[in-house]
Amino acid sequence: MNPIKELTEYFSDITRLRYVANLLDWDTQVYMPPGSSQGRSEQTALIEGIIHKKLVSEKAARLIKNAEGVANLDIVESAMLREAKRNYDRAVKVPIDLVKELAKTATLGHKTWEKARAKSDFKTFQPVLEKIVSLKQKEADLIDIGPTRYDTLLDQFEPDAKSDWILKVFNELKPHLKRILGKIESSTEKPNQDVIKMHYDAQKQWKFSVEVLKKLNYDFNIGRQDKSAHPFTVSLSSIDVRITTRIWENFLPACLFGTIHEFGHAIYEMNFNPEIHDTLLADGSSLGIHESQSRLWENIVARGRDFWKYWYPILQKYFPKNLKDYPEEEFYRSINTVQPSLIRVEADEVTYSLHIIMRYEIEKALMGDDVNISELPQIWNEKMETLLSITPPDDAKGVLQDVHWSGGAIGYFPTYTLGNLYASQIYSKILEAHPSLPEEFARGEFSTLVSYLGENIHKFGKIYTPLDLLKKITGEDLNSNYFIEYLENKFYPIYKV
Amino acid sequence: MNPIKELTEYFSDITRLRYVANLLDWDTQVYMPPGSSQGRSEQTALIEGIIHKKLVSEKAARLIKNAEGVANLDIVESAMLREAKRNYDRAVKVPIDLVKELAKTATLGHKTWEKARAKSDFKTFQPVLEKIVSLKQKEADLIDIGPTRYDTLLDQFEPDAKSDWILKVFNELKPHLKRILGKIESSTEKPNQDVIKMHYDAQKQWKFSVEVLKKLNYDFNIGRQDKSAHPFTVSLSSIDVRITTRIWENFLPACLFGTIHEFGHAIYEMNFNPEIHDTLLADGSSLGIHESQSRLWENIVARGRDFWKYWYPILQKYFPKNLKDYPEEEFYRSINTVQPSLIRVEADEVTYSLHIIMRYEIEKALMGDDVNISELPQIWNEKMETLLSITPPDDAKGVLQDVHWSGGAIGYFPTYTLGNLYASQIYSKILEAHPSLPEEFARGEFSTLVSYLGENIHKFGKIYTPLDLLKKITGEDLNSNYFIEYLENKFYPIYKV
Repeated sequence: MNPIKELTEYFSDITRLRYVANLLDWDTQVYMPPGSSQGRSEQTALIEGIIHKKLVSEKAARLIKNAEGVANLDIVESAMLREAKRNYDRAVKVPIDLVKELAKTATLGHKTWEKARAKSDFKTFQPVLEKIVSLKQKEADLIDIGPTRYDTLLDQFEPDAKSDWILKVFNELKPHLKRILGKIESSTEKPNQDVIKMHYDAQKQWKFSVEVLKKLNYDFNIGRQDKSAHPFTVSLSSIDVRITTRIWENFLPACLFGTIHEFGHAIYEMNFNPEIHDTLLADGSSLGIHESQSRLWENIVARGRDFWKYWYPILQKYFPKNLKDYPEEEFYRSINTVQPSLIRVEADEVTYSLHIIMRYEIEKALMGDDVNISELPQIWNEKMETLLSITPPDDAKGVLQDVHWSGGAIGYFPTYTLGNLYASQIYSKILEAHPSLPEEFARGEFSTLVSYLGENIHKFGKIYTPLDLLKKITGEDLNSNYFIEYLENKFYPIYKV
Repeated sequence: MNPIKELTEYFSDITRLRYVANLLDWDTQVYMPPGSSQGRSEQTALIEGIIHKKLVSEKAARLIKNAEGVANLDIVESAMLREAKRNYDRAVKVPIDLVKELAKTATLGHKTWEKARAKSDFKTFQPVLEKIVSLKQKEADLIDIGPTRYDTLLDQFEPDAKSDWILKVFNELKPHLKRILGKIESSTEKPNQDVIKMHYDAQKQWKFSVEVLKKLNYDFNIGRQDKSAHPFTVSLSSIDVRITTRIWENFLPACLFGTIHEFGHAIYEMNFNPEIHDTLLADGSSLGIHESQSRLWENIVARGRDFWKYWYPILQKYFPKNLKDYPEEEFYRSINTVQPSLIRVEADEVTYSLHIIMRYEIEKALMGDDVNISELPQIWNEKMETLLSITPPDDAKGVLQDVHWSGGAIGYFPTYTLGNLYASQIYSKILEAHPSLPEEFARGEFSTLVSYLGENIHKFGKIYTPLDLLKKITGEDLNSNYFIEYLENKFYPIYKV
């Protein structure tokens, strides 16, 4: 057999096992009975163990070596080899004992974090966080992609992204965000959020979200929507991509924008070219690119003015009591309120990236041993004051708010802001090619955008690395000006400044 | 490590992988989007392949050998070793190519059967059935538990049951069933089924089934009920045992008795002793014993007179329009109508076993090469005429009605009737120990029965083989008189003969 085919087939079994692990996870979050978690976690550990064993096997090494001997690989084949090597290299460098200790500590970390957050007491979380940080340092030292530990961790989520480059991007971005925020805060005509905090019947919210999904071309023949505590997207194969949402009866945006955000992730995975189905390339280019898709749909499209020209009259019919006499423009302003706030996941488009930047600064320092972990709450609160001029009243609303570090996900946060930057840069390019998009949205038509993203991003899966893909689409490197312009063009009118 | 512990741990991973395969199957039948089956079947094949590899590995052989060297095994340990050997022996004797061919043919068989049944054309199904029969013969010759091929296949579902023994049991049973049926058919006071064929709202049926489940002590903390085309029970671990039901709005019994039947299976698996959780012993003693539990709850309890003293007034409140003025006694008679009919799964308690006996006779002959497969429809129809005095109008309602043979499940049918026999024999023993059970049912109390079954059957899982278990509980070997008496005592009063 062709060595590349053989390599592809071998690693496809790993992809399939990941889909199986994904089903275990989906079921855990969506339908598993409350008392069944012990059995489930053992099954997950078992499947993860089988994946790890396959990944570091002599056969994997041999297949990679054979494939490296093949001349004139085409672009798909060389991406396949690249990803096989990436997966193999990362796995083979970490001894199984450390893998298990990391998994065990992540589980303990998550439980301890939940307890600490409930009590709003960082000291409860501190010892296990120290352990996590030290294990992640060990892991990074072993994998050692470099130049720094943080780069190694980052590379897992955002291939080829370097810590220095992120620093530069974020340092450019920060003063602009503060400037824009300042201008918005000086406004005397602020939107009013009362209308979206009225009571909205759960079942009607659900129905509206499904109506929107259908119109956006989400394919229920190979997907479904369910409810879970935290919305997420999961692929159980390239022809089974499911999303979840949550419904808050006293906050209308939670369900709708949760649905649309996850739609953006799901449509990516639904549109992979069949030739890469079930392979290592059946994945997003990076977490940042993935996030660019969810944010493009959620923020640029669905929080945009034109989207509501079509949908607001429909939404009014779903909720006449609350909305019949409420002006469309004011509704649009209401869902785009900008306001420094304590909690990242509730932040608006302007302040969101400031939350990310401070997390990035902290976790980078953690990896470099430049922080005394006991001082984290203080450091957190000082950064909040500097960036957003507010101070958390307690640890639960401060340093303990995010789940990521408790599970060992260090190096993940930057991908959220990269997603915003990629999205606005890509969208500006799309608008050049399709200047009538806003009018289409206003008519409830989304297929031009779906097709464009499918043809230029989705179908490639992981064939291109994020910056190559960005250059391929936009003709330039990452340029945060697009995001800054997007924010100014959108929010100054909303705030009438 | 203790060789038995080591053996147990090794095979527990196989049990866990089976739970994972069960989740894949549950999801396929309950929530998977319609267009996603291709990806799913590849994942299932992959997990089955991993299980097979683990089962026939040199390590498995070595662990079994080591365990065989241990003296003075207790009853759990020796059952563990027995089951490990059973699993290993069956798997190691069948070459992987035959395993794959069987799986492939079963998939093709199932698809072809669906097509053939839709067209009601046996000839479409015949070639693949011939292939299936010949592969099963090959498999039986390789495994060769003997004395006949049919014994070998039977042993997989009903350990230690011999074909000769089944023949004797069924031959004793047959004339009694025909005699009882004849007497019932001579009755001039037959129940009327009109009332259960009225329209019953699906959502209310669902709610009633959940209310019943709760009262029966089904533990929703480690289980759940969903809907599927065919009701089934599935364990995703010993602390995650789910059931499904189906709702027919124009036939009330479908949902309720589907739920209660599956409850009987589920409560078995929920009550395994924790020391056998996740091991090879976390399973029913046999399919026959499993079926005895579902039928005990469905037929003896829930189609019994006392059950409805409690539930009928409640059911009347759910469906006042249909039932308010309908007498309880007539309702009870209605759900116990006896009538020769074409379709096994719709058959009553008296005729059901006649359907089974003819299938047993046919499949036994198939394995012995005593049948020309092209003549099956004819053989089927003649047996129907002899046993039930009706002739199928076409193959769909005749030889093509069951799914079993299409997937290679030959030797499975007898377990249904064994289930009936076990159930009535066991229940008669329980009644001796707890003569007030009927009064308890009439008060809506079921915990005495649940506890008895838990303590005397469920907690043991697969520790005892079916006939040992039966003897342990009832002090005697299988005795079909209990079933015959049960039928006479129940149905003669209903039919006033």
